[in-house]
Amino acid sequence: MKKIAVLGAGSWGTALSMVLADNGYTVSLWSHRKEQVSELLENHTNNKYLPGVILSKKIIGTNDLSQALDQTDALLLVVPAKAMREVLRQIHGIMRQPMLFIHGVKGIEPGTFKRMSEVIEEEIPAQLRQAIVALSGPSHAEEVSLRHPTTVAVASNDLSAAKKAQDLFFNHYFRVYTNGDTIGVEIGGALKNIIALGAGMLDGLGYGDNAKAALITRGLAEITRLGTKLGAHPLTFIGLTGMGDLIVTCTSVHSRNWKAGNMLGKGEKLDSVLEKMGMVVEGVRTTRAAHALAKTMNVEMPITSAIYQVLFDGKHPKKAVDELMDRDKKDEIAPLTRSLAENNTKNQ
Amino acid sequence: MKKIAVLGAGSWGTALSMVLADNGYTVSLWSHRKEQVSELLENHTNNKYLPGVILSKKIIGTNDLSQALDQTDALLLVVPAKAMREVLRQIHGIMRQPMLFIHGVKGIEPGTFKRMSEVIEEEIPAQLRQAIVALSGPSHAEEVSLRHPTTVAVASNDLSAAKKAQDLFFNHYFRVYTNGDTIGVEIGGALKNIIALGAGMLDGLGYGDNAKAALITRGLAEITRLGTKLGAHPLTFIGLTGMGDLIVTCTSVHSRNWKAGNMLGKGEKLDSVLEKMGMVVEGVRTTRAAHALAKTMNVEMPITSAIYQVLFDGKHPKKAVDELMDRDKKDEIAPLTRSLAENNTKNQ
Repeated sequence: MKKIAVLGAGSWGTALSMVLADNGYTVSLWSHRKEQVSELLENHTNNKYLPGVILSKKIIGTNDLSQALDQTDALLLVVPAKAMREVLRQIHGIMRQPMLFIHGVKGIEPGTFKRMSEVIEEEIPAQLRQAIVALSGPSHAEEVSLRHPTTVAVASNDLSAAKKAQDLFFNHYFRVYTNGDTIGVEIGGALKNIIALGAGMLDGLGYGDNAKAALITRGLAEITRLGTKLGAHPLTFIGLTGMGDLIVTCTSVHSRNWKAGNMLGKGEKLDSVLEKMGMVVEGVRTTRAAHALAKTMNVEMPITSAIYQVLFDGKHPKKAVDELMDRDKKDEIAPLTRSLAENNTKNQ
Repeated sequence: MKKIAVLGAGSWGTALSMVLADNGYTVSLWSHRKEQVSELLENHTNNKYLPGVILSKKIIGTNDLSQALDQTDALLLVVPAKAMREVLRQIHGIMRQPMLFIHGVKGIEPGTFKRMSEVIEEEIPAQLRQAIVALSGPSHAEEVSLRHPTTVAVASNDLSAAKKAQDLFFNHYFRVYTNGDTIGVEIGGALKNIIALGAGMLDGLGYGDNAKAALITRGLAEITRLGTKLGAHPLTFIGLTGMGDLIVTCTSVHSRNWKAGNMLGKGEKLDSVLEKMGMVVEGVRTTRAAHALAKTMNVEMPITSAIYQVLFDGKHPKKAVDELMDRDKKDEIAPLTRSLAENNTKNQ
């Protein structure tokens, strides 16, 4: 297999195409935008998403999904979470042979609250899938395009498929770890944006590093509780797609979620913040999804619940922090070890 | 018990005294420095360590260890790791009744590589100890003195002692979690400074957020491997004293370890860096200790080993990073789940 299809030409899809091209593969980079494909073909640039970067000639833009999928049995999906199902339906319509489905999408489907690999399972019949792999980790696309050292995980229930994906992407600046826990990897990547909103709020309130470290750590503890209940392994959350990605998201002032949280922390209301941002703030949607999931699964998520109340019930962020600090005294890891033990019992 | 002895009047000992005073306790704050005690008694300040902060009158400075320990059965040790054993010997010489030993020291004893609770066990006979508790977490002392929201863990093999310590310190700005894993809490707090050195190096080399998130995440993974081998629970490292403290240390440019690492990353040699710093850089000593421990315990610690080579073998940091990125392909959490399974088998 010397050709790979990459579907979605945003900054992350383009940066991952560069990694594949550096590794000797021809990449068919699909986008539904005609002008973007012209730019890719004529100038070998994608200036809206990776300004100033010259792409390899091994990356060939296309508007034609059949052409993208022709003569390869591996595809990488890097489309917005809400567009995933529609793109998969189009793919299904033209597929001729089973393919390896890799995705690099951090998000949950709005409305259904489903993970991306669940959406792939639903839309592509088993006989047309070699396997499903989720690629995730702490990775600003701009830094990958500069070939700065980066690490990610590739997760699959099928270890040989994870190894195949590892072989495709691994090189001297892009270190890829396999991981057997798709659920944990997908949940960590999606839910981190809630905590990024919270980190912005704390900075907006003028609190310091102690508070932010508390938020990130206890935020990850409750994501881990939810993830474990959904079938993930708790140790995945200590890894690149949990803690690693959370660190990058919460300490970068370039994050949209952090910016929105910061305005909320300074006392602005959600409507006004979203209007000023002028684009999707993923964490707002994810907070609603996680809040609903926590109720359904009967998992205590006090930080998510506090952020939900700030976003949708008009609670002042200062009051939300005070209430979080004043809760009952707790043990730090006992709730996690309990749910780990429950999972082990279930799996035996 | 309405009085508590705090031994060590640095910034952390003083900030923790403020928390205790806010909670209604009288604090006997011991220091061996005469001028510092005079300042505490006359001005209710400790300007070298917490500049600009006015302390409660419930905090009473003393040079006299007997006076500090009089009429209380709880003491908090916040002295440098290398002074711990000597202070304990003095305490032992004057103790009359069993006491609750709480310590807030992040470090390993130089030379012996022992954890602080091990040193306490060795120096204070069992009949003179109610229990030993380690207090640790992501906590700049300055922020605690401003009463900004902060969370820490108190760890003890004796849960009722941990709960007693939780009751002493818990309040609306200082949230305390119990934890049953003393080894994990002490190892996390001590070894984080190695990773802080590495974070400074990466910034000195001009690398980005992806690289730093990789360092922190994979660094914590190897600390977790070592800790688990020493008897810790791996989930402790996802908590406040592992990941939480690591985030604060690695993202704060005020950290001495980060500063030293930064100079090393820019190509300076260790001798010149230490001379410029003019004070102890804890991470340098800890790297030597962890490197020796990893060998003894037969644990793979590639990041610690790379930092060791930069510090002591003159390896260029860029070369160290290249070698780390070029290692064999790995699985992300399998080595951890294996050692967790081994521990569970041992404990059954």
